[in-house]
Amino acid sequence: MFLPEGVEWALHCGWLLSHLEPGETLSSRRMAEFYGLPPAYLSKVLKSLVRAGLLEAVTGPRGGFRLARAPEEITVLEIVEAIEGRSPLFRCMEIRQRGPAPATKSDCLRPCGIAAVMYQAESAWRNTLRETTIADLASHASSGSTNRARGWLRSLPER
Amino acid sequence: MFLPEGVEWALHCGWLLSHLEPGETLSSRRMAEFYGLPPAYLSKVLKSLVRAGLLEAVTGPRGGFRLARAPEEITVLEIVEAIEGRSPLFRCMEIRQRGPAPATKSDCLRPCGIAAVMYQAESAWRNTLRETTIADLASHASSGSTNRARGWLRSLPER
Repeated sequence: MFLPEGVEWALHCGWLLSHLEPGETLSSRRMAEFYGLPPAYLSKVLKSLVRAGLLEAVTGPRGGFRLARAPEEITVLEIVEAIEGRSPLFRCMEIRQRGPAPATKSDCLRPCGIAAVMYQAESAWRNTLRETTIADLASHASSGSTNRARGWLRSLPER
Repeated sequence: MFLPEGVEWALHCGWLLSHLEPGETLSSRRMAEFYGLPPAYLSKVLKSLVRAGLLEAVTGPRGGFRLARAPEEITVLEIVEAIEGRSPLFRCMEIRQRGPAPATKSDCLRPCGIAAVMYQAESAWRNTLRETTIADLASHASSGSTNRARGWLRSLPER
């Protein structure tokens, strides 16, 4: 069980876009170039982020993508869920309701202890991802990676 | 991204086996019957639990499966990892090392902030699963489900 690789791409692109100056945008093609990613597939990932309200797509000659909100207001969880969805990792099939001695529907108004602990663990996972924002990622990044991103952005004739 | 359904089966079978009296075993066929599961596939799941040292397979006419340790000493995490493995949910492909302004190997001695928060969230998930044992599941189960399991076990002519 693995998260789709688009999750890694989306998080890195969110981080990269947080280095733009106000009013600037960056094209999908440029982001694919910076991270060595397949442009067509990255484009789908970015569209998912737009649909989730995390990025804005600006059309026109100076068009491209930018963060739709301040980096402080976009959590890692939002980006992960934009790509992966919100389905639980653990899908309870209610096997306790099968077989020769099944639990009745009224026995099953609450999740069983097994489903409960699996859901509790998922909440712990989601809560950790919710506590970190794009701004946190940017402020904790090494000066090397920040300088690489800024230097490359400045070097572009057009974005 | 979903956990394989064998995780649910393995956890329920571990719980069911905790209701056996000392010296008793239960066959794979009986567990498949109790939960309405495909016997051949359940058998593979149980073999994974034996390989992980969580169940013992007893051969012979009164053979079957039993817990290899006390229920207090088998965690939900151990059962989940016996089926799902221990690979991280998030696979970091180090895309920061690609493209026109790549991070160098020496920049990458530590995970980047993105990988770090993803791994931290996985630790929170695993820690929650590690805190619950089969004995906890049994002690928190409803009296209805405990009675159903015990009553069915007692009703079996052979297991």
